[in-house]
Amino acid sequence: MIVKHLTDVPAQEVEQGAVGVTIRWLLAEPDGAPHFAMRHFAIAPGGHTPHHTHEWEHEVFILSGSGTATGPHGDTPLEAGSVVLVEPNEEHHFTNHGAQPLTFLCLIPHRES
Amino acid sequence: MIVKHLTDVPAQEVEQGAVGVTIRWLLAEPDGAPHFAMRHFAIAPGGHTPHHTHEWEHEVFILSGSGTATGPHGDTPLEAGSVVLVEPNEEHHFTNHGAQPLTFLCLIPHRES
Repeated sequence: MIVKHLTDVPAQEVEQGAVGVTIRWLLAEPDGAPHFAMRHFAIAPGGHTPHHTHEWEHEVFILSGSGTATGPHGDTPLEAGSVVLVEPNEEHHFTNHGAQPLTFLCLIPHRES
Repeated sequence: MIVKHLTDVPAQEVEQGAVGVTIRWLLAEPDGAPHFAMRHFAIAPGGHTPHHTHEWEHEVFILSGSGTATGPHGDTPLEAGSVVLVEPNEEHHFTNHGAQPLTFLCLIPHRES
């Protein structure tokens, strides 16, 4: 059993098309997580993740703040307690429209490559 | 893309050795989640999950409240922002020692059977 606190994990800046976004890899392969990784994101007010697509899904849980999830069919509002499934190969990004950080968990499967 | 709120998902009572525990299956196979399921748990003050073991891991994130994670080497305190990896085949349970509900996400891989 591993127990840690999210603040034990360094926040890294996300590059590649993101604005004002940090990521903490809370649980990943180096921790012995067998199948999937838990990451914590914080988006600063006005910031957004890159608009992109990839072969793996996201399972997202909004912890605090407010914003939108943008998919192929437009924007959907997000608040604490919102849950998002981004399906494989679906274009998406997340935007903070509030005055506080938009924070969320985003889990992904381990990838072959 | 699926967007919902945790309160959209009915809370079901957990039986089989649990005391004061409810579960909401936020994202699972019926939603099209390809690899793993996101569940939300709430443990009432004084309650606990069953002490048990199984072949799959847990990835846990504490949302609110306080309590302990009990594993093979004893108890570890939990608070909002705590992260727990329960490894496959590791005995474990979670207990609420506080006055408020202990709420957390617990993700598991889809199982063969």
